Amino acid sequence: MDLMKKSIEMHAQFKGKLEISSKVPLEDSYDLSLAYSPGVAAPCIEIEKNRSLAYDYTIKGNLVAVVTDGTAVLGLGDIGPEAALPVMEGKALLLKRFSNVDAVPICLDTKDVDEIVRTVKLISPTFGAINLEDISAPRCFEIEERLRKECNIPVFHDDQHGTAIVVGAGLKNALKIVKKDKADLKIVINGAGAAGIAILRILLHQGYKNVVVCDSTGIIYSGREKGMNPIKENIAQLTNPANLTGSLDKALVGADVFIGVSVANLLTKEHIQSMDHDPIVFALANPNPEITYENARSWGVRIIGTGRSDYPNQVNNVLAFPGIFKGALDVRATDVNEDMKLAAVEAIASLVTDEELSEEYIIPKAIDERVALAVAKAVGEAAIQSGVSELYPRLLKNSVVI
Amino acid sequence: MDLMKKSIEMHAQFKGKLEISSKVPLEDSYDLSLAYSPGVAAPCIEIEKNRSLAYDYTIKGNLVAVVTDGTAVLGLGDIGPEAALPVMEGKALLLKRFSNVDAVPICLDTKDVDEIVRTVKLISPTFGAINLEDISAPRCFEIEERLRKECNIPVFHDDQHGTAIVVGAGLKNALKIVKKDKADLKIVINGAGAAGIAILRILLHQGYKNVVVCDSTGIIYSGREKGMNPIKENIAQLTNPANLTGSLDKALVGADVFIGVSVANLLTKEHIQSMDHDPIVFALANPNPEITYENARSWGVRIIGTGRSDYPNQVNNVLAFPGIFKGALDVRATDVNEDMKLAAVEAIASLVTDEELSEEYIIPKAIDERVALAVAKAVGEAAIQSGVSELYPRLLKNSVVI
Repeated sequence: MDLMKKSIEMHAQFKGKLEISSKVPLEDSYDLSLAYSPGVAAPCIEIEKNRSLAYDYTIKGNLVAVVTDGTAVLGLGDIGPEAALPVMEGKALLLKRFSNVDAVPICLDTKDVDEIVRTVKLISPTFGAINLEDISAPRCFEIEERLRKECNIPVFHDDQHGTAIVVGAGLKNALKIVKKDKADLKIVINGAGAAGIAILRILLHQGYKNVVVCDSTGIIYSGREKGMNPIKENIAQLTNPANLTGSLDKALVGADVFIGVSVANLLTKEHIQSMDHDPIVFALANPNPEITYENARSWGVRIIGTGRSDYPNQVNNVLAFPGIFKGALDVRATDVNEDMKLAAVEAIASLVTDEELSEEYIIPKAIDERVALAVAKAVGEAAIQSGVSELYPRLLKNSVVI
Repeated sequence: MDLMKKSIEMHAQFKGKLEISSKVPLEDSYDLSLAYSPGVAAPCIEIEKNRSLAYDYTIKGNLVAVVTDGTAVLGLGDIGPEAALPVMEGKALLLKRFSNVDAVPICLDTKDVDEIVRTVKLISPTFGAINLEDISAPRCFEIEERLRKECNIPVFHDDQHGTAIVVGAGLKNALKIVKKDKADLKIVINGAGAAGIAILRILLHQGYKNVVVCDSTGIIYSGREKGMNPIKENIAQLTNPANLTGSLDKALVGADVFIGVSVANLLTKEHIQSMDHDPIVFALANPNPEITYENARSWGVRIIGTGRSDYPNQVNNVLAFPGIFKGALDVRATDVNEDMKLAAVEAIASLVTDEELSEEYIIPKAIDERVALAVAKAVGEAAIQSGVSELYPRLLKNSVVI
């Protein structure tokens, strides 16, 4: 594939993609005496007295660590920390490009959950937020959960929540087109990994009531014996109100929405025809979706979103994470909580106006420059309202400052 | 002090000093598809097959982690990781400014030696080298020693070796002026902390035979009982061939060179007058040296170097570390060994020509742009010759490639 060859050439030509540079003048000895010894002692002394001044005098407040252990990189699996580095650099680049947030890759030479948690906590004084990236499930859940508790800066696992937020926004807009009501909607999620579970969580927070989750064993239900674990027991409690059992085929009968985070070319014509009228499909397997765009349209799918940039409705988490980190950093949030994620969903959805909305345009384009700023604003406000902003801790509910 | 106020203003205005930016084009979706998904998979796949390709396709080969625990920052002591960040940013800035090496501050929230070693090792896949900075003695010795063994990238504690290398260069040139021979020279080092011990080591490697080290208890000698530890026992073995005992006063009698890494205004007129003719003094206490420049000159010191930029012969480690890291990275050295440090000494000394050499110019100026490149070239060659270059591992001794 030519793109692959080109990418190797580009990476070799520039020897990676990031550069660390100075944003202060460094022309003469006077400049050096301000930026380094002896002048640099002044901000050090002030920060020692009041640690929060690190946000005023250093890069901390705009700096994100993009942390991975290299265990679930793209669709490539466990390729190790060095091989994960090009992706982490790419992520840092997108943060800079879309929201002017500075980010540094940190690829860890361990897969041990305790060590990962401890290491991230120990390096956290330098950073304003942590982006966990490409860490395999179910380890990623525990790592994120423990770090959210232990760190006083936001910790956000983008592979889980980024995709989920964009799907949430796409679904909200898709429902306007098919004119279906949230309360009556039956949604099938195929895939119970990191992304599937995060999508489930955001949908439940958005107020959807009838979600059915399938894994490779079939429908997850209360009382299932095969392939269960505490996380899936929890899924069974929260979903599948009709207590359906059986395979994905059965789950799809009468479903309004299919969301796939599973494998390529899974959906058949029969599957689509067994769904309710005006089916909505998010086929997110990468690079080849659960159903091709062409098949989806010819078999009667009304609205289809995929992970691909060469078809309409690309579900790309670049719509979410740059604005989420900027919003969290701008108000010095201590967490990225559910309110902030829902605010991101609403902000992304609202950028598609009723006039623009169509089967082929339910989500803004990945390169839409407006998105990150709109998301940042909404996320920052939600952080303030939900009481996790250190910069505006005393504002009353419903006040608006940004 | 006005400089201090200015420095606070500058740090607040720019919110820190570093910026992470892209060195690849990012204009359109095609650029993004090369730098990120799906094209980024190509370098990932190649690196998974051969880890050393991380040096070709990522920033690793030009990226240094500037690591501290905030325990010995400037002269401020144990001020914590957040308060150390302005200094680490400044260090990164100097690396970029003088040798185009990219560097990232990593301030650790622990003082535990085991945890520091483990954390640095775990984050090392991202980096081409580690610069340890402002870590208190004696912990810094063990941390550097263990990391040099455990990591396959160079680990260099600049506070120890940077100053030592510049002193070594300055002394070499000073001896040309006073026309004294290395073999007959008596050198007194006052201060047995990180810098003092590193200076001792480099002087011994340079071939000086008669060095006497003093600490706050006085001369270190074999059989001393007060204030000894394994490191000082080792110093006693390696130094003080006449087995002098007593105070600094006694050590200085007949000495040719005084090197102070101790406290301000320690040397008296009597001290200087007790030394041999044409005394050489490196008074490196910061910001106020062991003897002022004015006193040194009026009391008969022939050549004086200090840490200050406002007097001649500034011993500034910026003369050493940018070139050392560039040299080590350029040849993919796995260590910074003694040969490489000695090569840096020679390179720095040799930039002062015999015509330029004077009592007031024994070391190049800190802002001399030639230094880093000359040091890098010498250090890279020494790495190859001493067999620690991964890029040129099979070159025979005495071959020259750069």
